[in-house]
Amino acid sequence: MATEAANTDTNNIEIPKECKAGVVVNEGPDFRVEIQNVPVPEPGPGELLLKLNATGLCMSDIHFMVNDWAVPPMSTFGTKCAGHEGAGVVVKVGENVKGWKVGDRGGVKPLWDVCGSCELCWDGRENYCPKGVYTGLAATGTYQQYITSPAKYTSPIPEGVSDYVAAPIMCSASTMHRSLVDSGLKTGQWVVFPGGGGGVGIQGVQLAKAMGMRPIVIDTGDAKKKLALDMGAEEFVDFKQVENVAEEVKKIAGGVGAHGVIVTAPQAYKDAISYIGDRVSGKVMCVGLPPAGTTTIGADPSQFAFKNLHVIGTLVGTMKDTAMALEYAQRGLLKQIAEVRGMSQMPESVQQLRRGEVPGRIVIDFNKD
Amino acid sequence: MATEAANTDTNNIEIPKECKAGVVVNEGPDFRVEIQNVPVPEPGPGELLLKLNATGLCMSDIHFMVNDWAVPPMSTFGTKCAGHEGAGVVVKVGENVKGWKVGDRGGVKPLWDVCGSCELCWDGRENYCPKGVYTGLAATGTYQQYITSPAKYTSPIPEGVSDYVAAPIMCSASTMHRSLVDSGLKTGQWVVFPGGGGGVGIQGVQLAKAMGMRPIVIDTGDAKKKLALDMGAEEFVDFKQVENVAEEVKKIAGGVGAHGVIVTAPQAYKDAISYIGDRVSGKVMCVGLPPAGTTTIGADPSQFAFKNLHVIGTLVGTMKDTAMALEYAQRGLLKQIAEVRGMSQMPESVQQLRRGEVPGRIVIDFNKD
Amino acid sequence: MATEAANTDTNNIEIPKECKAGVVVNEGPDFRVEIQNVPVPEPGPGELLLKLNATGLCMSDIHFMVNDWAVPPMSTFGTKCAGHEGAGVVVKVGENVKGWKVGDRGGVKPLWDVCGSCELCWDGRENYCPKGVYTGLAATGTYQQYITSPAKYTSPIPEGVSDYVAAPIMCSASTMHRSLVDSGLKTGQWVVFPGGGGGVGIQGVQLAKAMGMRPIVIDTGDAKKKLALDMGAEEFVDFKQVENVAEEVKKIAGGVGAHGVIVTAPQAYKDAISYIGDRVSGKVMCVGLPPAGTTTIGADPSQFAFKNLHVIGTLVGTMKDTAMALEYAQRGLLKQIAEVRGMSQMPESVQQLRRGEVPGRIVIDFNKD
Amino acid sequence: MATEAANTDTNNIEIPKECKAGVVVNEGPDFRVEIQNVPVPEPGPGELLLKLNATGLCMSDIHFMVNDWAVPPMSTFGTKCAGHEGAGVVVKVGENVKGWKVGDRGGVKPLWDVCGSCELCWDGRENYCPKGVYTGLAATGTYQQYITSPAKYTSPIPEGVSDYVAAPIMCSASTMHRSLVDSGLKTGQWVVFPGGGGGVGIQGVQLAKAMGMRPIVIDTGDAKKKLALDMGAEEFVDFKQVENVAEEVKKIAGGVGAHGVIVTAPQAYKDAISYIGDRVSGKVMCVGLPPAGTTTIGADPSQFAFKNLHVIGTLVGTMKDTAMALEYAQRGLLKQIAEVRGMSQMPESVQQLRRGEVPGRIVIDFNKD
Repeated sequence: MATEAANTDTNNIEIPKECKAGVVVNEGPDFRVEIQNVPVPEPGPGELLLKLNATGLCMSDIHFMVNDWAVPPMSTFGTKCAGHEGAGVVVKVGENVKGWKVGDRGGVKPLWDVCGSCELCWDGRENYCPKGVYTGLAATGTYQQYITSPAKYTSPIPEGVSDYVAAPIMCSASTMHRSLVDSGLKTGQWVVFPGGGGGVGIQGVQLAKAMGMRPIVIDTGDAKKKLALDMGAEEFVDFKQVENVAEEVKKIAGGVGAHGVIVTAPQAYKDAISYIGDRVSGKVMCVGLPPAGTTTIGADPSQFAFKNLHVIGTLVGTMKDTAMALEYAQRGLLKQIAEVRGMSQMPESVQQLRRGEVPGRIVIDFNKD
Repeated sequence: MATEAANTDTNNIEIPKECKAGVVVNEGPDFRVEIQNVPVPEPGPGELLLKLNATGLCMSDIHFMVNDWAVPPMSTFGTKCAGHEGAGVVVKVGENVKGWKVGDRGGVKPLWDVCGSCELCWDGRENYCPKGVYTGLAATGTYQQYITSPAKYTSPIPEGVSDYVAAPIMCSASTMHRSLVDSGLKTGQWVVFPGGGGGVGIQGVQLAKAMGMRPIVIDTGDAKKKLALDMGAEEFVDFKQVENVAEEVKKIAGGVGAHGVIVTAPQAYKDAISYIGDRVSGKVMCVGLPPAGTTTIGADPSQFAFKNLHVIGTLVGTMKDTAMALEYAQRGLLKQIAEVRGMSQMPESVQQLRRGEVPGRIVIDFNKD
Repeated sequence: MATEAANTDTNNIEIPKECKAGVVVNEGPDFRVEIQNVPVPEPGPGELLLKLNATGLCMSDIHFMVNDWAVPPMSTFGTKCAGHEGAGVVVKVGENVKGWKVGDRGGVKPLWDVCGSCELCWDGRENYCPKGVYTGLAATGTYQQYITSPAKYTSPIPEGVSDYVAAPIMCSASTMHRSLVDSGLKTGQWVVFPGGGGGVGIQGVQLAKAMGMRPIVIDTGDAKKKLALDMGAEEFVDFKQVENVAEEVKKIAGGVGAHGVIVTAPQAYKDAISYIGDRVSGKVMCVGLPPAGTTTIGADPSQFAFKNLHVIGTLVGTMKDTAMALEYAQRGLLKQIAEVRGMSQMPESVQQLRRGEVPGRIVIDFNKD
Repeated sequence: MATEAANTDTNNIEIPKECKAGVVVNEGPDFRVEIQNVPVPEPGPGELLLKLNATGLCMSDIHFMVNDWAVPPMSTFGTKCAGHEGAGVVVKVGENVKGWKVGDRGGVKPLWDVCGSCELCWDGRENYCPKGVYTGLAATGTYQQYITSPAKYTSPIPEGVSDYVAAPIMCSASTMHRSLVDSGLKTGQWVVFPGGGGGVGIQGVQLAKAMGMRPIVIDTGDAKKKLALDMGAEEFVDFKQVENVAEEVKKIAGGVGAHGVIVTAPQAYKDAISYIGDRVSGKVMCVGLPPAGTTTIGADPSQFAFKNLHVIGTLVGTMKDTAMALEYAQRGLLKQIAEVRGMSQMPESVQQLRRGEVPGRIVIDFNKD
């Protein structure tokens, strides 16, 4: 885990003509990522040019490169690089940009830009802006060291949070923060993270703890258990060790059931509602996106009615969620459980991620080969 | 529709030894209701004796008498009378009752009593009290003219609201109020009532209108259309006249989709989510209880996530919901669309209700043969 | 009252070099407004050039021209025109503007622009953006026919709402909407508008009514009474006719007291809290801005504690409030009670406003001499 | 500080005819408390007889005995004992009590009983019930070892929380919890406790910390500093050491100002609003009750409007607040900073409290002489 802040002395930095990028080749089921030299882009009006020091690798990247979600292929947009968890430093400022200067640190999120003028944008829900532009799909992603980013939608990275920590916050921690806030769960309430020992869930666990909730992690193995408890889980349920996970959760949660469940892993939807048990007004939060058409979450309407059950979906975090998650990181309440690898390892790392061989989160260091 | 307040001059009323009741005979699939003479009960400590002037008939009554819900049969509790929409007058006050006197008007709701000391009772959510006692199942129901009711959970009926209007408010209007409040829907938002021309839905339509929302009723026929529009629906979609109901709703609701859907009829669950269209943060409220195991409401988790979709269940109204609904009635903003019939018509009316032959709400007048 | 939509056929409109403006002369206590010819400005990047058809006159304009508020004088910013309630049509689109085209209708609000990147801007509270630029103070105001406006912060005016109606919505109705929403007052609750028969209050009355609340207007005279009741007030208290206004409000409001009070007139602060009476959790909303140092709103802490009293201030409306208020206008639920006057009447109208001789709202028609 | 649970083996306990009580003598400015033998009362229907093991001493007790608040004197109600922070065990159960049995542990709060049937009682705001009966004023207080308590409004004390800890939770911690919840302050926000090193404030600090907020304590001296930081304060401002407290708070709170201020000490009202600084939507919570007519909290309406300032009062906690505070205590997140003294010390301890000579909270142990 990297804890040092990346070098941000860029006042005299020379911007090269070309930079390294992890380009998708043979887009589709047999895609691969190749390190190539690509032109450094020019920031347009209202845009920043960022030199990224780090990018996280996220499962959504795979979906965009395989193109197995119901979205047009990256090539439709002329996009060569996936990635949406970037952290770096401003090296050039486009026309009409206010509030940013060379040397400032900034992050790029799953949404590269939003319209800024719809009712959602003006209501603190710009993460659902119908004109939102997805990074690494419709705009060049963070697998490329130098990318442009709209000044107004670039997230400032606070002092004390290194780029290697900030990068995965842009997507996973921010998404977790959104889900926790949107759930309406309150301090002192029990919240279950199925698969919470994983890369995304563990960020939710830390945030829930910081927000005064009582996290229960359902996962397996001693390593996951230690990690979960170290990171703030109040209880750990090893699904291979207990006969009835829902009963175990109920027992822990006051003999009633959990107040909330945050579902990040597709396979967890099946049992998610059962963890609510007899709790009234329980919230089941849908965050993880399974392959289209493979999964359903729902219940008999009576089950909803008798327990005031809520099933709610949230997508990515807002600008504010990201700022909040970064603040928790700055306060030491949100640690990254990520492995930092060099640029040359990116192609194989992406394949490992696809094959499900990555235990936590991988962060690519653009400054390391 | 009865508009006169029932006679409440009961100061010198003599309490008879026996009274008429619609008793369930042959409980189960072949049940029937018989008018019998039954003993007038004695109010225990903390209880009132009410002389009901009116009771509504509700589909839940049928379920209790048939016993096709997952609850013990009425006979387990020694209950002979179904019914949970009663309105009348206090004729006797038990020991240790404060705040009630003979002559006061009061109503009996689907929950006859709640524990008053659990976290739900102390949080304004006593309608989910795990020790709640269901009227007409575990306690004698409102098909009987003289019944007891816990003083603390009897709903005061305000001046200007007749018992014939108040009775069905105890269940259906109160339930609708709960659902609308719990949805978090706001003034100015579009809310769809599938089957909203029916007895329960039309009360939701009126309440939604009174709360500043914009109701859309989906139903069929000119009579329903006229009723819906008269009662406050801003738009009416005749599902037999339009090709694509969801598209029609979308067109009406700003080209985006409804902000909320209140599902009272079991068959409406199938399409309910589709009325949300592209609306972000839409609320689908589950109120109507289908026969167990026949219906599911749910969707692909991605559909929840991409639109911040909420599916939420609510059961009956709280003490406060009932008070609010009564207040709307008092203000003339909630009218009852009910047919008042005499006591002798009760047995056949119950069978008509069971066979689905009742267009709106039937209210039985205990003072009429 | 103008109800016809202004002509918006501007595709072939020629933009003149100069236009008419109500310029402030001799800024300070002895200021006057003079109709002058001024250059038509050029829209910068991200900006629109609007041809205004209407501007409202607002008391804040006077404060800016007199410079008796704790802000720098207009001349500091090189601003010659006050005004912040403008409605018109786009006649030219600057560089890098998305989502707007010539011929679109747009309005200018009290805030001409906000930073778009602070935590308030991203949280739906951009009306408090610390970098907000005040129209008619730091940016040229709407007393001038052709002005520029940042595309992202210009409010689209919906079809069916004329510019003469839309103009005062930009400030007063939007401000009222903000206050009502921020109060947390709910449907069915009593809300008092002291001086609610006036230009600003009457918009609050209509909005409160549309939101399902029960407005009580405190004002005097039969004309005000008729207006208030016509516009949705449920009760009118003539402060010259009743001995004790607070007692009268209490009597109306269930014998307890109002749930909320919206204070727009400085002199109403004195008695505002008294209208809450014995109501628990009452909200006193501070909207009207008295001359600095002249007024205080507050109470003994015990009074706050014993009744869970809330005193809350709100300033102007957000982008969303304005959109909502315009939607109510479009639905016919918010009517303008304004007098439309020609351009030549502007100088004298401003003085009348200053002298308190304007009964309602004055709107200047730029197309009328 | 007592940490052992009090003995609760009461199954065979004999109830004496008389018990010790701290009786008020010479009610008024020259009152004193005398230890006397008084009859053990008999629980009425719906009531419990509690054998208290502990009572806290609270400043309100003094006000009731002096009778310098705007309430009738204790003698009007025939009340001889003040006190409203009692914890003990049920030794007898009255008629018609459900859910309690001899040996259960229970606590008595500032409100001895509420009506249970008003709109506030049914809305989770029973702490404002207009028919609420104040303990130690209108009902015998907790200065007496055996007292009765309505079963429905007695707070169950969970295992693991001793009576010496539970007693002051009944008033001070519950009151702090109410204020924090009612403030709407969120996790991660800065909340100031002026005088937070004192007996009440320090409970607020711990609760705020447990709820994920960032407490700032303003107090003086190294002992207070150590205590505050140990108990969860993130920052301590010594008002004797810094020149400008508000500036110091602003510096700590992101250079903007605190999100909230919880005022428990009357003298803190004067500067409370200043700690909000430039923070938008700040909340100033009024909890401490100064002698009537001595203090005002308020500001220029413009100050409210420009910063969306909220000034809000809260009184005591609800049944639910008490349960929540007890749960935090059970989890080890709320510790009592109290000195436990024997019964014989009660008379002098009360005088010390009156003279302001008590540093934290005093708890009287009824089982110790």
